[in-house]
Amino acid sequence: MSQTAPRHDVSFLEALSLDGEVSFADSERSEHAGDWGTEEAEEVLPDVVVYPESTADVSAVVAAADDHGVPVTAYAAGTGLESNAAPVEAGISLDMTRMDDIGEVRPDDLQVDVGPGAIGADVDEAVARHGLFFPPLPSSGDISTVGGMIATDASGMKTVKYGEVADWVLELEVVLADGSVTAVGSTAAKSSSGYNLKELIVGSEGTLGIVTRATLELAGRPEQIKGGRATFPTLDDATAAISDAVTSGVDVAKIELFDGETAMLANAYSDTELPERPMAFVEFHADHGVDEEIDFCRAVFEAHDVEAFEIAAGREMDDLWQARKDITYAAESYDPDRVPGQPGDVTVPVGSYPEMIRAVKEIADEHDLLVPTFGHAGDGNLHYFALYDPDDPDETRRAEAAYAETVERALEIGGTATGEHGIGEGKRKYLRREHGDAAVEAMRAIAEALDPNGTLNPGKVVPDE
Amino acid sequence: MSQTAPRHDVSFLEALSLDGEVSFADSERSEHAGDWGTEEAEEVLPDVVVYPESTADVSAVVAAADDHGVPVTAYAAGTGLESNAAPVEAGISLDMTRMDDIGEVRPDDLQVDVGPGAIGADVDEAVARHGLFFPPLPSSGDISTVGGMIATDASGMKTVKYGEVADWVLELEVVLADGSVTAVGSTAAKSSSGYNLKELIVGSEGTLGIVTRATLELAGRPEQIKGGRATFPTLDDATAAISDAVTSGVDVAKIELFDGETAMLANAYSDTELPERPMAFVEFHADHGVDEEIDFCRAVFEAHDVEAFEIAAGREMDDLWQARKDITYAAESYDPDRVPGQPGDVTVPVGSYPEMIRAVKEIADEHDLLVPTFGHAGDGNLHYFALYDPDDPDETRRAEAAYAETVERALEIGGTATGEHGIGEGKRKYLRREHGDAAVEAMRAIAEALDPNGTLNPGKVVPDE
Repeated sequence: MSQTAPRHDVSFLEALSLDGEVSFADSERSEHAGDWGTEEAEEVLPDVVVYPESTADVSAVVAAADDHGVPVTAYAAGTGLESNAAPVEAGISLDMTRMDDIGEVRPDDLQVDVGPGAIGADVDEAVARHGLFFPPLPSSGDISTVGGMIATDASGMKTVKYGEVADWVLELEVVLADGSVTAVGSTAAKSSSGYNLKELIVGSEGTLGIVTRATLELAGRPEQIKGGRATFPTLDDATAAISDAVTSGVDVAKIELFDGETAMLANAYSDTELPERPMAFVEFHADHGVDEEIDFCRAVFEAHDVEAFEIAAGREMDDLWQARKDITYAAESYDPDRVPGQPGDVTVPVGSYPEMIRAVKEIADEHDLLVPTFGHAGDGNLHYFALYDPDDPDETRRAEAAYAETVERALEIGGTATGEHGIGEGKRKYLRREHGDAAVEAMRAIAEALDPNGTLNPGKVVPDE
Repeated sequence: MSQTAPRHDVSFLEALSLDGEVSFADSERSEHAGDWGTEEAEEVLPDVVVYPESTADVSAVVAAADDHGVPVTAYAAGTGLESNAAPVEAGISLDMTRMDDIGEVRPDDLQVDVGPGAIGADVDEAVARHGLFFPPLPSSGDISTVGGMIATDASGMKTVKYGEVADWVLELEVVLADGSVTAVGSTAAKSSSGYNLKELIVGSEGTLGIVTRATLELAGRPEQIKGGRATFPTLDDATAAISDAVTSGVDVAKIELFDGETAMLANAYSDTELPERPMAFVEFHADHGVDEEIDFCRAVFEAHDVEAFEIAAGREMDDLWQARKDITYAAESYDPDRVPGQPGDVTVPVGSYPEMIRAVKEIADEHDLLVPTFGHAGDGNLHYFALYDPDDPDETRRAEAAYAETVERALEIGGTATGEHGIGEGKRKYLRREHGDAAVEAMRAIAEALDPNGTLNPGKVVPDE
């Protein structure tokens, strides 16, 4: 923690009549100093935490802060991995979690309006009684908020079939840097009306505007859901099988890679007895004919020497998936001396997925590190982390190098530095390398046009120079 | 035609060593003075037509034009309906049709790189031998270009299942207003890396940048395709059935409305003997189980008193669809004294589709006009036009009023002024009404940030004040 003294004069907040609360408590400031990805040494306390309860609150705070040159950083569950919501220049942490209203579902339009603080799983539960669900829910959906998902254009296991968060956000109410309130997007299923501000706001991590309400699109729950787990002799066989399944048109709702090291962590964590070999976890959604789709998948997997392919439904399927869900906890508890750090989510064209996975393993070997590798393989999305001892400078240096080399390699083969976690502070250094100077300067021009005073979440997304 | 004398000095073009041609011929200038939606009286001749053959050509022309204060308006097939590519401030018409290269298909990534001048149907044909297709092809796909589709974020009959053009564009090479060349988007299937410039460029109608190459995503051709045509006793039954099918989760690849008047036009045009009653045209794509999906659809339609539901495949299905494809020609030849004018494409949330269709018919009756109504009903997208005599001032006024009232009504019920044709010049007057002042000013700020001299397609999308 680098400081506790206030950096900005936020006394102007007193003059605002807010519905929500304002807190200067050290404990609350401390809670808002970073997210899951922020190292403790890099945390910065916000000067104040404001808990808005209405769009009017957000508008009033942002307008006044913009007038007074005080940064405003929207915050919610704090589950970001790139310090996306860390108040690196202090100022106001705007905690959106009290704006968690979930409106009446409109089943005739397949829509629901929610506040940005609504937890993803709560939305899913609220719409379930209409036979609907919110397809792009990320793996963190039990604890992360809709606002956070929109901020990074999150995605999840079902993205391979259903798409990412942006695809399921129709309209947003947004407070701009000057405090003005606007709607972007349309509740119509498609629109060619003007610049696509909705897609610009989604993924902009609170740097271009703060979302105060979202109209989400919903899908009907499939009649048939079955899951499966396939084991392969080598990692190459597993990745080639996954890539082939996707390009052959197997209609999978989830298709996840799980390498032998990840299985080892899972077994150590709970009483599972997973084969410690490369695996593909799959799930199929259909209104009819799910078994025919599974047969199609099996045929593709057999061409890649699949060793076993278990299929399950209902609770048995949930058990099958439990290991995948528990990875983070399993990684944290595996080795008391080592943390699972430097988490990445590079994404490459799916045909290059086998090459990318080979590269990660080569890089891990080179740096003599354990790097469990898993993720949303059907999208070409790869999660990985290094297990290293943060008190060992050499091991830390090697973990950092492995992380950087993995991102570089993904960019070399036409991928992206981040498939779903966003740029935040952590990945700003790769933005220019990925997109080139002209694109980065275009992003900077847009940020300056919409937020000329640099009020909204400064120090994020666009690099300083 | 309002002028033929040049408005801008474009002699700087002589100093550029271009791969492509430069033409000052009146005939070519005249060909580039408007699109399908531009009335002859409103056509403006560009000062010159340039046919670039490379990205370097586009960059050189745009950079020089930007230096000299000369507008550049990209042009392709000219099939726009809102004067999207009309050079309303003259200057350079940049005809992209020679940049029509279709690269090697990458079936392992489901991708292909194409030039903006490539015709949609040619792309579809080129990828077909890999068993792939480009799903969002608009109805004009036989003649319109990929660049044009990207410019308006076009969509088509299959959008209800597969999404719009933006959903199938992964990466774009773009020439910005200062002539710099950049890539936006990613060839990875998803990315959260920085602001979504790709979605900003798509639909921006050449006002923020000019697309010089597109990486498109492709899908596998379904094993089973069947089509169908259902007849309903009333228009209300037809629209309610369509809306219900979509929200119930019937997996349709196309679901189009065709009202009795449209059927009447079709019968008059060709030898079809369509019942002159409200109809739904449907198409189903599946790798297996297409008949089960049709049965599900039939059950939904039966709940809305469907009178007949014919199913066909192969050539028989093509015949079934021919009437839908011929609408434009049928409308043009129906009444020698009347033109099908004021074409609209409002889109509303699908639950409000029946209400919207009723409104169109009420407005038509009120103005004593024949307004055939059809379109991509599954998206809530409605096409319509009035048949009116352009030499009759009163009838013209009534047609214009009916058009305006229809757009207003769509906006009132939460829809958009344009689902797929874009804003161009024609719909600029509705932008503020649809999005509000703050959103329009944000769009203007973005345009000024990326194109400070107003070089790119001036007079489009964002209203002058």
